[in-house]
Amino acid sequence: MMKEAKRIPVLEVFGPTVQGEGMVIGRKTMFVRTAGCDYSCSWCDSAFTWDGSAKADIRMLTAYEIIEQLKELGGNAFEHVTISGGNPALLPQLGELIDSLHNEEISVALETQGSRWQNWFWSVDELTLSPKPPSSGMLTNWSVLDDIVAKLIAGKSSFCLKTVIFDQADLEYATFVHLRYPNVPFYLQAGNGQLKETEPERMLPYLVERYEWLIGQVMPNPELKRVHVLPQLHTWVWGNKKGV
Amino acid sequence: MMKEAKRIPVLEVFGPTVQGEGMVIGRKTMFVRTAGCDYSCSWCDSAFTWDGSAKADIRMLTAYEIIEQLKELGGNAFEHVTISGGNPALLPQLGELIDSLHNEEISVALETQGSRWQNWFWSVDELTLSPKPPSSGMLTNWSVLDDIVAKLIAGKSSFCLKTVIFDQADLEYATFVHLRYPNVPFYLQAGNGQLKETEPERMLPYLVERYEWLIGQVMPNPELKRVHVLPQLHTWVWGNKKGV
Repeated sequence: MMKEAKRIPVLEVFGPTVQGEGMVIGRKTMFVRTAGCDYSCSWCDSAFTWDGSAKADIRMLTAYEIIEQLKELGGNAFEHVTISGGNPALLPQLGELIDSLHNEEISVALETQGSRWQNWFWSVDELTLSPKPPSSGMLTNWSVLDDIVAKLIAGKSSFCLKTVIFDQADLEYATFVHLRYPNVPFYLQAGNGQLKETEPERMLPYLVERYEWLIGQVMPNPELKRVHVLPQLHTWVWGNKKGV
Repeated sequence: MMKEAKRIPVLEVFGPTVQGEGMVIGRKTMFVRTAGCDYSCSWCDSAFTWDGSAKADIRMLTAYEIIEQLKELGGNAFEHVTISGGNPALLPQLGELIDSLHNEEISVALETQGSRWQNWFWSVDELTLSPKPPSSGMLTNWSVLDDIVAKLIAGKSSFCLKTVIFDQADLEYATFVHLRYPNVPFYLQAGNGQLKETEPERMLPYLVERYEWLIGQVMPNPELKRVHVLPQLHTWVWGNKKGV
């Protein structure tokens, strides 16, 4: 009897496009977005992955089927795939997809909030842990995050921490995160509070203002010294449009 | 007799601000801009470093004096310095500044076109080689660039290649560069052809359009697979303003 391939709940496969944020900002990449999340952040830009609104669109795909779709869309023009969610760390079966991509000489970036560990974290080429600040309405489980960070450091993984910032309380949270894990590359990202806006022309001045505000907050702060401050570049170009 | 400290021709010291481009985009950093260049790119955004217009502003500073100025401006809130020009690679005496910064636990990024070698290249934490495409009006000396890339690879340096893109000829040049050095991280950067514009509000739509154009060119291209595509983020926020 053949071993049945473990299926992955997928909501979007798109690209090639540029990664719009974080440690691989600008990188040419394909995206795979998985369904399901253990969080429900107030400002989540992909709430359809967990709020039930796109339940009918979830496709249960094997790693092989996902790679076929990536090739159909990206042809021979990519060698990098970003897995996002939802929270992909809910899916132990992702290890097979990551290994299969590596077998095709494709690198893999992945983002998760750092609420669950998976052994395949060690295989991800660029792993982003994005603990959620107070404005999200979520609570961080520090002992879980401590454990994940310790395992990644022990495994010499290439990873970073990233926190989205909307306000002063978020900045204080980010400072706490950075001081708790001072040797992990740290990214502060200006939050997008205009998720309903459909006109990029109207969004752009708002997003630039938020980014400039965040720069102004971080630059004089001696506790936030070894950091990156970035916007979500894709929203500057495409607003809230999906699939780009 | 005391050994006289070798002085460095400096035109700007500013920050802390964010690095707006390339491999350390978003990084909180201070800037030191040196005077003098062996090139005269048609679209240079810092032509005052070589066209004589700011000759009277050049200050001949020691490494110690530069670090004093950096501390005066950035206080205790930085640990990263970017050295730019002009072409800083014209200055053998920069090695002393880089070593002195390292002694203070400050990392150093540096950008140069790759027309000259200096042994201190090996000491730079993030070195960007930015060979100039046809639109610049400059000609690349490939044997010099080959030699620099080989030395950096042999020295296990952390470095990247970056090319500014204005048009199709620049894209062909960039493809040539990337295929010549396929294992060096490669960044394509949308060019700014509006250096005289003083209103950020007018520049922004132009810059977004140029970035989107570049993304559109690179995404389907199978020869530009393992690449980053980035704008100059600082121009999106501050336009052509200097010192930010």
